[in-house]
Amino acid sequence: MADLRSAVVMAGGVGSRLWPYSRKNRPKQLLPLLGDRTMLQATVDRLAPLVPPERVFVVTNREYVEEVRGQLAGVPAENILGEPEGFGTAPAVALGAAVIRGRLGPGLAAFLPADHSISPHAAFQTTLETAFRAAETGRIVTVGVRPTAPATGFGYLRVGAPLDDAPGAYAVDEFVEKPSLDDAIAYAESEAYFWNAGIFVWDLDVLFAEFKQYLPHLAALGEEMAAAAATPDFVARLDEIWPRITDRTAVDYGIVERSKRVACVPAAFRWDDVGSWSALAAVLGPDADGNVIVGDHIGIGSRQCIVFAKAGRLVATVGLEDVVIVDTGDAVLVCPRDRAQDVRDIVQRLREQGSHELL
Amino acid sequence: MADLRSAVVMAGGVGSRLWPYSRKNRPKQLLPLLGDRTMLQATVDRLAPLVPPERVFVVTNREYVEEVRGQLAGVPAENILGEPEGFGTAPAVALGAAVIRGRLGPGLAAFLPADHSISPHAAFQTTLETAFRAAETGRIVTVGVRPTAPATGFGYLRVGAPLDDAPGAYAVDEFVEKPSLDDAIAYAESEAYFWNAGIFVWDLDVLFAEFKQYLPHLAALGEEMAAAAATPDFVARLDEIWPRITDRTAVDYGIVERSKRVACVPAAFRWDDVGSWSALAAVLGPDADGNVIVGDHIGIGSRQCIVFAKAGRLVATVGLEDVVIVDTGDAVLVCPRDRAQDVRDIVQRLREQGSHELL
Repeated sequence: MADLRSAVVMAGGVGSRLWPYSRKNRPKQLLPLLGDRTMLQATVDRLAPLVPPERVFVVTNREYVEEVRGQLAGVPAENILGEPEGFGTAPAVALGAAVIRGRLGPGLAAFLPADHSISPHAAFQTTLETAFRAAETGRIVTVGVRPTAPATGFGYLRVGAPLDDAPGAYAVDEFVEKPSLDDAIAYAESEAYFWNAGIFVWDLDVLFAEFKQYLPHLAALGEEMAAAAATPDFVARLDEIWPRITDRTAVDYGIVERSKRVACVPAAFRWDDVGSWSALAAVLGPDADGNVIVGDHIGIGSRQCIVFAKAGRLVATVGLEDVVIVDTGDAVLVCPRDRAQDVRDIVQRLREQGSHELL
Repeated sequence: MADLRSAVVMAGGVGSRLWPYSRKNRPKQLLPLLGDRTMLQATVDRLAPLVPPERVFVVTNREYVEEVRGQLAGVPAENILGEPEGFGTAPAVALGAAVIRGRLGPGLAAFLPADHSISPHAAFQTTLETAFRAAETGRIVTVGVRPTAPATGFGYLRVGAPLDDAPGAYAVDEFVEKPSLDDAIAYAESEAYFWNAGIFVWDLDVLFAEFKQYLPHLAALGEEMAAAAATPDFVARLDEIWPRITDRTAVDYGIVERSKRVACVPAAFRWDDVGSWSALAAVLGPDADGNVIVGDHIGIGSRQCIVFAKAGRLVATVGLEDVVIVDTGDAVLVCPRDRAQDVRDIVQRLREQGSHELL
């Protein structure tokens, strides 16, 4: 039974750096940013050969539950789990793990973000298969991505020796959160550092044991969730349990970085977090003028621009360089490419102004 | 009778550098670019103390005649004259002059563009009064504007001695069309050079005599138009006369710059041609961050930008500098301020693509 495999797709979050396309009511992971399938659908598609849809679970904001059910026709409706409130990834992982244990019993579970770009699918499946096998040894397996740039916004891990009992997996000697630029440059040049992609695989027994050790209060609430998971009044009981959570933290800080059981499987796939318009453009790839264009655009002498116009209207540019333009039906964003990270400041301003219809 | 005064407002043209706000079917002069009144309405408003509305005429493209009639409720419908086709300002002046002569008889007439920003109105009226009086001496009076910048796209005139018989008017010694930048810099520093603002006042007898001398073929057609002007089938006869025009040129080149009768009255008013988004911004004036904003805008650290958003949607910018953004319902223009002159290239591209709905 130990190798019965499930997956929990983590689909909370808002994606405010992708405003105005990403909104509170239609966040990044529920949008078709990179083709016809939404980020969430693509995530579940990638899992299909390894985890059948009836063993795929999604943890999301409660307000997105119906939308997620609509997007994932093959996944049972009861597998879409709505958090009453977002408290970080540790409670989300606890919820997903508790429901699987309560309904399906022990086994292995992969936890994956719904809003990352991963290709090709076959390479992802190879990596995840390696990670599932490594997790059978009782380790917490994290997938590491070789840095393609000295990013300062990611968490890094340093790998050590290969593990004899887990082919393709390595010991993890150190975690570094959001390094300085100098360190990030050194990490990008080193062979030993990887980005923590937020993809974890572990045995549920190990998971509950680690939670008991490092976040015991949340572990106890997880036991209550597991007991309620197979009952008809699960949602009502979750509403009662959820506000009592005090460990409102990320699973990385709360568990993974403190655990002695962590291993890393290097990713064989290309990975992008698609966290900003610049990052999305890097995935989509430029045309001959260096522009990344989605939608209807006339550019005269424009270069290195990102135009994302899904509102069916024309965006026209003359002699423009290194600028992002995003046109939705009700708003237009214009900013230099190197300020794409600061788009969230617009969202903050809208919140302060009470402009809820644009959030 | 010589001082009976009329005015002809020249309201052809498209304003393609103000795309996407200015369109083929709603050109610049018919738009409220600078407030609640359209450029055309403001032009007629300014004339009111000097020329009563029943003596105000408008020459425009035939397709705009009904729109112009709607905008100018006080001006008689038959005073709105539609050119079957735009052939430059010499035919337009001939048409306006012929209709006045044919319907009202001799007198003075001012010819003024409909698409310039002029303020304050009282200063304009003082200048035009001076020009009307100078025109009574038989001169072709042009209003000169002191350069506020070394513009290379305007025509310049060099004034000479003050005229004894026409207070406030000066001889014109030279015309220079679109000078080099070096020359324009010298002209802007000199006291003797003025922009030709395209505002002319002359006696109709003088006008017809000058046309006979310099554009005799057009003068003859003008006599035909004058004869037809008071008849019930004027429009049909104009349709027959108009295609026979061969002097398809500007009145500046065709008459004024060749005439020996030209005088200049310096403008006491502020004048802007509002020919481009940069020029419009100069008239509207910047806020504390140097931005010129019309419409709903959130700017975080943005400077020296021009945002013109009349579509009721939000334009959001982060860290943007020296960029023009114009958002209409169906199109968005983004370009650096110093490329604002090249917006017409977009219109040209749309024409080539056959995108008529956006022209």
